[in-house]
Amino acid sequence: MAKNLQITPLGGLGEIGKNMTVYEYGRNMIAIDCGVMFPENDMYGIDLVLPDFNYVVENQDMLRGIVLTHGHMDHIAALPYLLRQVNAPIYGTRLTLGIVERKLAEAGLLPRADLRIIEQNKPFHLGPFGITPFAVAHSIPDSVGFVIDTPVGAVVHTGDYKLDETPAGGQTTDLESVLRLTQNGVLAMLGDSTNADQPGRTPTEQVVGETLDRLFAEARGQRIIIATFSSVLARLQEIMTLAHKHGRKVILTGRSLVQNVTLASELGYLDVPKGLLVEIGAKIKKEDTLVLSTGSQGEPRSALNRMANGEHPHIQVERGDTIIISGSTIPGNEEDISRMLNKLFERGANVIYGPLATVHVSGHGNRGDMRKMLETVRPQYFIPVHGEARHLHLHAQLAEEAGLPAENVFILHNGARWVTDGKQAWRGEPLAVDDVFVDGRLIGEIGEIVLRDRHRLSQDGFIVALIPVNARRQLVGEPQIISRGFVYLKDADELLAASSKEIKRQYKRGIPHLQQALEDFFYRETHSRPVVLPRFIQVAG
Amino acid sequence: MAKNLQITPLGGLGEIGKNMTVYEYGRNMIAIDCGVMFPENDMYGIDLVLPDFNYVVENQDMLRGIVLTHGHMDHIAALPYLLRQVNAPIYGTRLTLGIVERKLAEAGLLPRADLRIIEQNKPFHLGPFGITPFAVAHSIPDSVGFVIDTPVGAVVHTGDYKLDETPAGGQTTDLESVLRLTQNGVLAMLGDSTNADQPGRTPTEQVVGETLDRLFAEARGQRIIIATFSSVLARLQEIMTLAHKHGRKVILTGRSLVQNVTLASELGYLDVPKGLLVEIGAKIKKEDTLVLSTGSQGEPRSALNRMANGEHPHIQVERGDTIIISGSTIPGNEEDISRMLNKLFERGANVIYGPLATVHVSGHGNRGDMRKMLETVRPQYFIPVHGEARHLHLHAQLAEEAGLPAENVFILHNGARWVTDGKQAWRGEPLAVDDVFVDGRLIGEIGEIVLRDRHRLSQDGFIVALIPVNARRQLVGEPQIISRGFVYLKDADELLAASSKEIKRQYKRGIPHLQQALEDFFYRETHSRPVVLPRFIQVAG
Repeated sequence: MAKNLQITPLGGLGEIGKNMTVYEYGRNMIAIDCGVMFPENDMYGIDLVLPDFNYVVENQDMLRGIVLTHGHMDHIAALPYLLRQVNAPIYGTRLTLGIVERKLAEAGLLPRADLRIIEQNKPFHLGPFGITPFAVAHSIPDSVGFVIDTPVGAVVHTGDYKLDETPAGGQTTDLESVLRLTQNGVLAMLGDSTNADQPGRTPTEQVVGETLDRLFAEARGQRIIIATFSSVLARLQEIMTLAHKHGRKVILTGRSLVQNVTLASELGYLDVPKGLLVEIGAKIKKEDTLVLSTGSQGEPRSALNRMANGEHPHIQVERGDTIIISGSTIPGNEEDISRMLNKLFERGANVIYGPLATVHVSGHGNRGDMRKMLETVRPQYFIPVHGEARHLHLHAQLAEEAGLPAENVFILHNGARWVTDGKQAWRGEPLAVDDVFVDGRLIGEIGEIVLRDRHRLSQDGFIVALIPVNARRQLVGEPQIISRGFVYLKDADELLAASSKEIKRQYKRGIPHLQQALEDFFYRETHSRPVVLPRFIQVAG
Repeated sequence: MAKNLQITPLGGLGEIGKNMTVYEYGRNMIAIDCGVMFPENDMYGIDLVLPDFNYVVENQDMLRGIVLTHGHMDHIAALPYLLRQVNAPIYGTRLTLGIVERKLAEAGLLPRADLRIIEQNKPFHLGPFGITPFAVAHSIPDSVGFVIDTPVGAVVHTGDYKLDETPAGGQTTDLESVLRLTQNGVLAMLGDSTNADQPGRTPTEQVVGETLDRLFAEARGQRIIIATFSSVLARLQEIMTLAHKHGRKVILTGRSLVQNVTLASELGYLDVPKGLLVEIGAKIKKEDTLVLSTGSQGEPRSALNRMANGEHPHIQVERGDTIIISGSTIPGNEEDISRMLNKLFERGANVIYGPLATVHVSGHGNRGDMRKMLETVRPQYFIPVHGEARHLHLHAQLAEEAGLPAENVFILHNGARWVTDGKQAWRGEPLAVDDVFVDGRLIGEIGEIVLRDRHRLSQDGFIVALIPVNARRQLVGEPQIISRGFVYLKDADELLAASSKEIKRQYKRGIPHLQQALEDFFYRETHSRPVVLPRFIQVAG
């Protein structure tokens, strides 16, 4: 084993190797990225999903460092959870570490963090790993992929990328450096599969700039409100530049937006023309302003959604306002977004979204980008990562179309271990991993049973039936019903009276039987299946 | 009022005038369509949403008939609920009534139903309304719109439509008849707004046929499985014709699919070549078969999802199978579909979906279709319907671009009343309407309070604390905790012991205070907010 390279993808919610990837050689380990997933709609009450980094914790003596590709939450936001359990230096570019610093400070972990800045094309060494960051085009500046030299060969770890040649002021993906750094060949590539079901090339960010420019011109004489992701700094730069060109002042609303703009301009990653930003209460004619807002996903407490509901403390949407939603729809958010759009239209705004105009492009490469990456890097082995199973399979198909032998393409699960001695490659013994749910302060304590109960409660509520019995288990007095989420009790007198009768008829048969009998009773009466919990209460008498 | 025409849209979930539209003149009323909506993800436990037809029930003496445009559920499936309360003849084309007949039979309402077949271009009269159906292209055969002659002028009610000139064997939208029937001009048009945010023309169904033809050719030697909507009969026809051409036998799986195919072929709306359909267990090589399945939305109990889970009683997905998802993604279903696709890929199938190939086109017209409809009909007044607020506003913008004065375009809410005397038009006093939720046998009894409780239960579960007190309200013994969906109780000994202590410390302050104190306690300890219900139980002692 000591002479082999092992690569283990980790992640949450079926996204393979998105939130973390572990590289090992001998008694040396590095972890690339440390991010979170946001829960799906049916994961009731869950705030975040963490990758299962038990293995990293258990083997922390081997951990030489945590290396970050870029500053998005799915790549960094699990750091506070990991750092409570292990201590290792964190490597990232300047902007990435700026964002990490804020995250760790919020968690009170900054004093113990060891943050080390890395730069494009400057190699650094962690045990046997020689790591050289290379620039990639993505929707946040200072994003990098890595060429990782190992004793058995070079691995290209793309991170999130697209191949945008005109990224509207941002950086391009530096394929020249990749080629220069891998003149002895590439043993393996781990490639971003996010958009593997999207044909063609990802449109350039320039198209968005041109569309916004046109929309800004058309909106002359009207206020403009734009909602976008606060983490898509490239877009924020574009919007600010265009606002300046069109003679508008920019008002920021939304906490994460203000934070990110402040941080990125302090670090020099946002070029904000002097005097462009004004306070939200500033006395400026609204047609001379552009409001930059959070809320492109219709998030209930976001600034734009509060405007839609007429609950924003400073900004009232008015007839004729132009509102632009410059973001994609994250699956699961469709209904929130639809409701918000409806309300904005009802307030008389001219809302531009989705297919009506190209006001957003993805930060990930489509199939055309992936194909070019594969043909440029020409790895001996290919491991599609960053995607759910369908994306990995579609990316694998593409790699085979591009000429890789099928047996050199490895589709892995989280926890699966890819092993190579530089000549051959095979699957090692997988780690047992699980999604780790965060619910408030409970980390990893909420499991399938609790989620199943929550699901059932969400559908039909619950009924606790307290049944007064005396010391001889004889019924004494009326059962008492405690219920929520089933029917509105004040409207259900008859149903409850009938259920009391049923309890009296059935109580002698004991709790398990009584529970079944009551479940049957309520199903017969309502075709609903509330959680039913009878309890005997021993009272005097 | 007696000399005015009044039009009132009804519907559910913010879809305006989709499920029902009421026309009134004097003491005469007709209702067009009678459909349901399916609940959104956060409408916990709700099965269906009905339009609020209280007004129709209260004024059923005026009701001359219920007139149907086509056989989709959002236009017919509320009939069983309405017919329990009113009795009126139901008018529809032959296929539409065939589907209605089955629905009513399931509900045991067929004996009392009065179904009357209507035909394209054959006018019929209901009180002062002269109604002529005209053919429209939509994704189910026998769809019609109506030209409704009223004493104050003609109204064009489009129903669901697109302007597909090559609808792959289906009918085209008969604009010639509309023009012929409205030679004296059109007072008003109610137009389908579903796709008002989709630019261009809706691609023709022919594109889907060509794509499927190509995919079938590529899949030679492999089994093909296609999932589509069982209600999209035009697509089913296409698939059967192509299967026949490619020498494959067709196996049906999924209850609604078998029912619809049986009904439509009995009525002559599906042309199924002799011997094409075979039983699911038939001894045929799988590469010579095409499995036509339900489940394009990843519905948990659908045939395709059961295949994905390896739980289908007859069909096991195998490496190399070609699976085609020939349907759009209905908003809210993204996560179910994704999970199903992942599992199908993991079984080694070659799955073709969404943007990978044009395996589906919409049954509704895009902006280009809408514009042509407006320019052909040239109504004096325009009322966009069938859509949420954003669609209506975008359709209204289009009408104004097409030359209608803004004051002649009316955006209505459900229950709003549009009134005209043939010369002018205005807004009448609106009806108070509400979404009517169906939850099992409970119709209209589940309201906001219960849904709010269900939401809270879904997030953090509940805790009932039973506090034993004696006749003097003194605590006697240990509080008993009943809980579900909060934490897994077996893992939470310490937390529960601490909560018992908190109860003992706080019990003297009475239930309202105790409830607050316990909520605070659990929030402090877990950052969760379960529903907390303390109850004093009087026991001996």
